[in-house]
Amino acid sequence: MKIKLVIEYDGENYSGWQKQDGKKTVEGTLLTVLEKVTNNPVVLFASGRTDAGVSARGQVAHFEVPDSFKFNKFSFLGSVNHFLPDDIMVKDACVARDDFDARFSAKKKTYRYYFYVSRFVQPTFKRFLRVNDNADVNLMKKAAKFLVGEHDFKSFVARKSGKTNFVRTVFSADIVSVEDNLYYLEITGNGFLYNMVRIVMGTLIKIGTKKMAPEKMKDIIEGKQRTLAGKTVSGLPLVLWSVEYD
Amino acid sequence: MKIKLVIEYDGENYSGWQKQDGKKTVEGTLLTVLEKVTNNPVVLFASGRTDAGVSARGQVAHFEVPDSFKFNKFSFLGSVNHFLPDDIMVKDACVARDDFDARFSAKKKTYRYYFYVSRFVQPTFKRFLRVNDNADVNLMKKAAKFLVGEHDFKSFVARKSGKTNFVRTVFSADIVSVEDNLYYLEITGNGFLYNMVRIVMGTLIKIGTKKMAPEKMKDIIEGKQRTLAGKTVSGLPLVLWSVEYD
Repeated sequence: MKIKLVIEYDGENYSGWQKQDGKKTVEGTLLTVLEKVTNNPVVLFASGRTDAGVSARGQVAHFEVPDSFKFNKFSFLGSVNHFLPDDIMVKDACVARDDFDARFSAKKKTYRYYFYVSRFVQPTFKRFLRVNDNADVNLMKKAAKFLVGEHDFKSFVARKSGKTNFVRTVFSADIVSVEDNLYYLEITGNGFLYNMVRIVMGTLIKIGTKKMAPEKMKDIIEGKQRTLAGKTVSGLPLVLWSVEYD
Repeated sequence: MKIKLVIEYDGENYSGWQKQDGKKTVEGTLLTVLEKVTNNPVVLFASGRTDAGVSARGQVAHFEVPDSFKFNKFSFLGSVNHFLPDDIMVKDACVARDDFDARFSAKKKTYRYYFYVSRFVQPTFKRFLRVNDNADVNLMKKAAKFLVGEHDFKSFVARKSGKTNFVRTVFSADIVSVEDNLYYLEITGNGFLYNMVRIVMGTLIKIGTKKMAPEKMKDIIEGKQRTLAGKTVSGLPLVLWSVEYD
């Protein structure tokens, strides 16, 4: 029997999703609890890894349990969340079809990257990225539009990525205003490369702070070289917002 | 010369606004920095105190400096924020009229109290108040309307308050949706009693979770007895949003 989970976590105190010996990870913490609750060894498959510090509002993962396992959604959620620390929560659980795969069946992923425009560090925005107050958010909005479509995003991948195919489709990319000087980049695509959203954000900041024209985004995509894009900004303000399936 | 400050702080790690010996307070931390920057002893007058854990997006305070002090807004803000910890920030500073008083000149204060409706603790909403998922936010909205107007709010004041006059005017009170299951109570008035917003919120939660009808809010106000209202909920999700002057 295959169980699908929707998971929310605050990544601040975790070394990312992926289990690593001697490190506190989201996957490692979940595995311990799932094995206790199901009384079975568990292998967990997520829609994708998230880096150290990155949070999730709707990460999706699946795992197998023997068919003898009595799955009841409410008692399962109750006991899993009872054992989990406050910074990880299983929001939803259901029995999935046998051909469901949290990673390969995913059709759309949405990330949000929160930032604020201010001369000084702002206490109630501590977790978000600060962008200098000379930034023009409209330039960032304009530049984000060039990301939409099917492109080779080689300029936006960490050099240590083992991938060779950098073609991804971005369905939408926009800067959304939350309140006052707080915004987020919302980007939806069929998949993202290693560090891609953080590098996109670093590039948008160069554009917002007028170190580069918005149209330069097009050249950076076409250039297919990591050095053309901006730096990789902090993972803390990044949230894997949702993963969609058919 | 009188200086008016607009201050933002994350109250989580502070024992409230008011200076207390041996405790980390917002006022105490600000005083140390203001005395260093102005090279003068400083007495700070805030629009009002905030309790332990309560944050502010726009607290207002004033203090006097000798007229010989050379006030330049940008260098003042720069050096004050340089010395302040990341969880306190002076957002704005200006020379105020002699008759300005951060407390007595205040015409309107707005507080926001953040809460979410969920069966379990939600990792990315850790700082906010969790309300059980049987809650009906529309009942809370309905109940909040009864607070609007000039009333004797004796039912909503902590017993240890030294005040004798409990008449305050609430200009508006509403539940606002942020996203998904996250909301805040936004309440604006000419002043608030000790713990008033937290007791109002505790009462709204009783109503939202159907332990009490929305119309009961009217009886609680008229009854003028602390025992009629709900409990005092946590200060952590509370933010002094703004203070307005003429």
